[in-house]
Amino acid sequence: MKGKLLYEGKAKQVFQSTEDEQQLVLSYKNDATAFNGKKKASFEGKGRYNNLISAHIFDYLKEKGITSHFIKTLNETEQLVRQTSIIPLEVVVRNVAAGSITRRLGIPEKTVFQPVLTEFYYKDDSLDDPIINDAHALLLTDLNEDELVFIKQAALEVNQHLQAFFDRVGLQLVDFKLEFGRDQNGSILLSDEISPDTCRLWDKESGSKMDKDVFREDIGSLIDVYDAILNRLEAAK
Amino acid sequence: MKGKLLYEGKAKQVFQSTEDEQQLVLSYKNDATAFNGKKKASFEGKGRYNNLISAHIFDYLKEKGITSHFIKTLNETEQLVRQTSIIPLEVVVRNVAAGSITRRLGIPEKTVFQPVLTEFYYKDDSLDDPIINDAHALLLTDLNEDELVFIKQAALEVNQHLQAFFDRVGLQLVDFKLEFGRDQNGSILLSDEISPDTCRLWDKESGSKMDKDVFREDIGSLIDVYDAILNRLEAAK
Ligand SMILES: Nc1ncnc2c1ncn2[C@@H]1O[C@H](COP(=O)(O)OP(=O)(O)O)[C@@H](O)[C@H]1O
Ligand SMILES: Nc1ncnc2c1ncn2[C@@H]1O[C@H](COP(=O)(O)OP(=O)(O)O)[C@@H](O)[C@H]1O
Ligand SMILES: [Mg+2]
Ligand SMILES: [Mg+2]
Repeated sequence: MKGKLLYEGKAKQVFQSTEDEQQLVLSYKNDATAFNGKKKASFEGKGRYNNLISAHIFDYLKEKGITSHFIKTLNETEQLVRQTSIIPLEVVVRNVAAGSITRRLGIPEKTVFQPVLTEFYYKDDSLDDPIINDAHALLLTDLNEDELVFIKQAALEVNQHLQAFFDRVGLQLVDFKLEFGRDQNGSILLSDEISPDTCRLWDKESGSKMDKDVFREDIGSLIDVYDAILNRLEAAK
Repeated sequence: MKGKLLYEGKAKQVFQSTEDEQQLVLSYKNDATAFNGKKKASFEGKGRYNNLISAHIFDYLKEKGITSHFIKTLNETEQLVRQTSIIPLEVVVRNVAAGSITRRLGIPEKTVFQPVLTEFYYKDDSLDDPIINDAHALLLTDLNEDELVFIKQAALEVNQHLQAFFDRVGLQLVDFKLEFGRDQNGSILLSDEISPDTCRLWDKESGSKMDKDVFREDIGSLIDVYDAILNRLEAAK
């Protein structure tokens, strides 16, 4: 099943699939990093939670007509995906102000964005993933203008679906990060993961943070929070 | 002529005009600052150079059909301008890579941008003038989408004219910063200054830097360089 290790990232290992050379096995690690790798820790069970939560989300998006790289869950910590050539953009959608934007632009936490904000960051760890504008994205990637518009629209559509998805289980979707890649036909495909590592989720009742901010801000047990999310998703199925 | 001091900035004092309350007297100071005020110095004569060079440029732009706040030169260090309500954006146009973009995006100095790059920075000293995208600009200013497009186009048009303007005197226009304001009718008007403080200019023959980078990088005499630019402009008149 698992072939050669192609890449080891901060949160996942990427293996070639032995069955189909256009497929990859993503193996979710227990490592947590924040502030572009400046803060690090490991949590027993984290890989399993992100693998299973991400699978729930990609399944839901598929039901809603949004295709992604996700093929199927292989085991507790691994999933099979279509290989893409990742576009070096972190596409961030913000419904509510939290995290870096509050510091960068002086916008108070909890400010509601109307319209919803979309941002691009250039995915380059050595540059600390700098924020960029559309002109930079066209310069730094192989995307053309139509494709850039397509990615923004796709991100907003994913936002609509994810808001409904999390709302059902009592969670407010504050913001999230997506990555897109190109498949072998050149088509753009939603890739990577969608998990509490890549979304900000606030409990609708208590307002408490139920995502990686628990680790970033040292305000609770990451595993307890990820476990609560998976439980709510299983119960809502 | 000069009424109340309304504002003292890093490079200019802004006075009410006693003749017309819709007009201001901009008084150019000898102060130089860099890296958002972290580096400071004063150069005898600098205010005069920027005042006179800026006037040359606004006169030229007017000939080319680009209106601005500039009305006339009052004396060696002061000019009369129309009062606007400044839009808190620094609009940067880059023909060639230099300065912050080389560090932020890892683009080698001297890389030619084709197409020309336009960037917005949010004019807020307390936030260190962070770079923003179009969505942030719409959020943080009173501009609507059409006005944002208008400003980008105006900046590119100014770039065309300034490239020709500086080319005549043996200078390559590397990049520059513009500010726009709203006049009392709500129309958007090119404002502030255009000078070697706000442009990067490289000598076409030698490639040497002839702008505020001389001060930023401690690579020569700022006054000698500004004097050379004014002399070339006077000679080309
Ligand atoms: N379908 C895919 N095809 C190829 N690469 C992928 C795919 N999905 C995700 N990736 C990449 O897998 C890598 C490993 O993930 P991760 O550990 O999160 O890495 P990183 O530390 O670079 O964020 C990332 O570079 C991500 O972009
Ligand atoms: N036509 C105008 N009407 C009103 N304000 C102006 C006009 N042109 C320039 N300004 C403002 O004058 C102020 C003084 O200039 P400067 O010393 O460069 O200030 P700063 O340190 O804020 O850059 C700036 O805030 C600039 O935006
Ligand atoms: Mg990642
Ligand atoms: Mg200024």
